[in-house]
Amino acid sequence: MSIVTLLTDFGIQDAYVGTVKGVVLSINPEAKIIDITHQIEPQNLVRAAYIISSYYKYFPAGTVHMIIVDPGVGSDRAILAVKTMGHFFLAPDNGVLTTLLDEDDIDVIVRVENTRLFLHPVSRTFHGRDVFAPVGAQLSKGIDIEILGPKINSKDALRLQLEKPHFSKHGELVGAIVGVDRFGNCITNIDESALEALCRKDSFMRLEFDICGKRIKGLSRSYDQAKPQHPLAVVGGFGYLEIALNGGNAKNYLNAQIGDRIRVAIKS
Amino acid sequence: MSIVTLLTDFGIQDAYVGTVKGVVLSINPEAKIIDITHQIEPQNLVRAAYIISSYYKYFPAGTVHMIIVDPGVGSDRAILAVKTMGHFFLAPDNGVLTTLLDEDDIDVIVRVENTRLFLHPVSRTFHGRDVFAPVGAQLSKGIDIEILGPKINSKDALRLQLEKPHFSKHGELVGAIVGVDRFGNCITNIDESALEALCRKDSFMRLEFDICGKRIKGLSRSYDQAKPQHPLAVVGGFGYLEIALNGGNAKNYLNAQIGDRIRVAIKS
Amino acid sequence: MSIVTLLTDFGIQDAYVGTVKGVVLSINPEAKIIDITHQIEPQNLVRAAYIISSYYKYFPAGTVHMIIVDPGVGSDRAILAVKTMGHFFLAPDNGVLTTLLDEDDIDVIVRVENTRLFLHPVSRTFHGRDVFAPVGAQLSKGIDIEILGPKINSKDALRLQLEKPHFSKHGELVGAIVGVDRFGNCITNIDESALEALCRKDSFMRLEFDICGKRIKGLSRSYDQAKPQHPLAVVGGFGYLEIALNGGNAKNYLNAQIGDRIRVAIKS
Repeated sequence: MSIVTLLTDFGIQDAYVGTVKGVVLSINPEAKIIDITHQIEPQNLVRAAYIISSYYKYFPAGTVHMIIVDPGVGSDRAILAVKTMGHFFLAPDNGVLTTLLDEDDIDVIVRVENTRLFLHPVSRTFHGRDVFAPVGAQLSKGIDIEILGPKINSKDALRLQLEKPHFSKHGELVGAIVGVDRFGNCITNIDESALEALCRKDSFMRLEFDICGKRIKGLSRSYDQAKPQHPLAVVGGFGYLEIALNGGNAKNYLNAQIGDRIRVAIKS
Repeated sequence: MSIVTLLTDFGIQDAYVGTVKGVVLSINPEAKIIDITHQIEPQNLVRAAYIISSYYKYFPAGTVHMIIVDPGVGSDRAILAVKTMGHFFLAPDNGVLTTLLDEDDIDVIVRVENTRLFLHPVSRTFHGRDVFAPVGAQLSKGIDIEILGPKINSKDALRLQLEKPHFSKHGELVGAIVGVDRFGNCITNIDESALEALCRKDSFMRLEFDICGKRIKGLSRSYDQAKPQHPLAVVGGFGYLEIALNGGNAKNYLNAQIGDRIRVAIKS
Repeated sequence: MSIVTLLTDFGIQDAYVGTVKGVVLSINPEAKIIDITHQIEPQNLVRAAYIISSYYKYFPAGTVHMIIVDPGVGSDRAILAVKTMGHFFLAPDNGVLTTLLDEDDIDVIVRVENTRLFLHPVSRTFHGRDVFAPVGAQLSKGIDIEILGPKINSKDALRLQLEKPHFSKHGELVGAIVGVDRFGNCITNIDESALEALCRKDSFMRLEFDICGKRIKGLSRSYDQAKPQHPLAVVGGFGYLEIALNGGNAKNYLNAQIGDRIRVAIKS
C-alpha cells in the first residue's frame, strides 16, 4: 500500500491538481492519491499549518503527505522532507510545517536537493508538478528519505509566529479563532488540555466563554446541547475548542473573523 | 473489489473528508473511495434523500454507500446500516434514507451499536471519522451486517415527509421542484411513469407544463429541442421530469426556487 | 494499470460525476479514476480545449481521458475516440478537441457508434453515464479503438475558431488572455517559442508587455521577481506566457477579462 495525500492552494478549477496526480501515477502506478483539500486560500500558510495536524494521524503509517502551499515557488526557498511518527511530509520551507514540527518528535528532516529525482526541465512556476510529485512518488515507493538531500536540524526549519493561547492577569484563558469550517463553526487554538488546566477540579459546566460580544455558559458535549439557533462551546473532533450554533452558522451569527479573541473563565 | 462512496455535507474546504478516508484506508487498504458530493447544503436532508436514489444503482453490488448528513451528531439518534439490492448503506436515522427505504425491497436494517468497531475515543462531534468510517471500512471488507447491531423493522426507521406528486381535481398532475443542478436544470419529483399515466395513449407532445408563470408545450427528448435560450421540459437522466433552458440556466430564467409547483396537463 | 481521467462541466454539487465513476468501476474494477476538473463553466468549449493540452502528457501512456463538455448531448453530434501519443481521448465532436488535434500527430480517430458497448436504455440527457463511461471503461480495459466505430479523418472533426497570436504591422506580437487560474494569473495563448521568435538574439529582459493599460518590462523567471503586489510576465508551468501579481491576484489588479489583448514588443 502506498498512499499520497495532497493539501494545496491550487483550487479545483484548473488542471494543476490533475497534473500532479499524473506525474505521481507515472512513477508509482500503485499510489492511492487522496485529496485533503485544495481550497486553502492562496498562500494562507497559517490555515495550512493548523490543518495538517488534524488529519495526518488518521492515515496509515507510511503515508506521504504533500503540502503544496508555496508562494515562494521558484525562489531560493528550500523544500523539506520530514519523517515523523512513521509518516512522510513534503513541504516548502516557509513555515507551513510549524505545528507539525512543534508537536511531534521528528525523526529526520532533509532538504530536498537531489535534482536527479525531479522532472526536467524544472519549471520555476510549478514545482508541484516538477519537484513535489516525482519526489513524493519516490517516497511512496519506499526510497530512503536521506537520498533526497542533506539532513538539517528541526530548529533550522522556518517557523511561523503562530499565536498561542495564554492566561491573562485576571486568570482568564485567552485564545483566538484560527479557522472557520464549512458549517460556520469557529475553531480556536485552545485545546482540551488547556481547558482542563483552567478547570482543575471544577466542572466544564462552570466555564464561561466570551467571544465577539457574546457570552456562552458551560461547555457542551455535542452540537445539540443548546437551543436551536443558540450558540454553544464544544471541543471539536480534532481536540480544539470551537464555537458553534445549533442548526446554524456561528460565524455569521457572531460576525466572527479569523483572529478574533476568545476569553474563557470559571464562572464565579 | 471494495468500493466505498461518500455523500456528505462536509464541503471541500476542511480536512473532514480526507480524515474519513484516512480511517477507511487504515482499516481496508484495498478500498476504492469515491466522492459523490460533499456539497449538500449543511444539514439538507431532503436534498440528500433525493440524490441517493440517483447514483447508487450504477455502482457494482457490494458497494458501501456512506451518507453523512448528520445534524444530530452526538445526540441519541441512531445510525443505521441497510442492505438492499446487494448494496450497503450507512446513514443516521434522521430520514435521509427515506426515498431509498420507500422505493426498494430492503433485505436487512440494523442499528449500528457494536462499539467495538468504532474508533476510540468516540468524539461527539465527528462520527463520520469515529463511527461511519471504521464501520463502513469493515462492511467493505465483507463483515456480516448483523454483527453491527440489532435488526430493526424498516417501518421503524425515521421518514421525512417528502411531498409526492398528486392529481388535482381538474386532472392536472401537480409536482414540485426538488433540486436544481449545476446547469440550472430544475428537477421535479414527477417521474416518467406519472407522465405516462397522465398521457395514457396521448402523445407526450400534447403535454403542457405550467411553472413559475411560464407555459411550456410538449415534452422534449433532449436539451436541444427548443430554440436557444428557450425553456423546455424533458425527462432527465435519472428518470425525473426537469425544466431546462437550451444553452442557458432555467433556474435563473424562471427565477425558480426549490418547492415551486409545476402543473402538467393534456392540451385540450 | 488503467487510468481514466475526467474533465467535465458537471460541477461537484450533484451526483453526475459519482454516477459516471460507478459505471466505469462496474465495467473495469481496476480503473483508477482521476478528476482533472469538473468546474469548466457550463458548455465553455474554449476553456476545455485549452486545458486538455496542459495535463494529458503528464499521465502514463495508455490513460483514457474523458472530456464531457457536451452542450449538444442528445442531438445528432457524434462522439469521437482519439488515439494519439499512446493516450486515448473520448469527447463530443463539438470542437473541444481542437488544440489536441492541431498540436499532435493523431494515430486514429473513430466515431463512437458501437451501441453494443453503451448502457441501455441510452438516455438523451446523460451520455456521460450511458456512453462515455462504458466506452471509456472498455478502452481502459484495452479494447481495440477501432471496435468503437468507423475511422474518420482528423480534418473531418469539428474545430473551434481559436484565436491565434499574430504579429502586428508594427512588429508586435499580439495575443489574448485565454484563461484565468485560481491565483488570478492571466494565461495567454502565447507560448515560449513565439517569445523566442520575437526576441531572436535579444534578451528576454528587453521584452515589454502591454495589457489592460499597464506596461510590464522584462520577462521574469518566477513569481517573486517583481516587488510584492507588482505585476510581472512569466512563462507558466504549461509553457504559456502569463501575467501574475507577486503575492496577489493579477486578474483583479488588471481588471482583466478572457479575450483581453496582450501586446509584446522589444524595448527600443
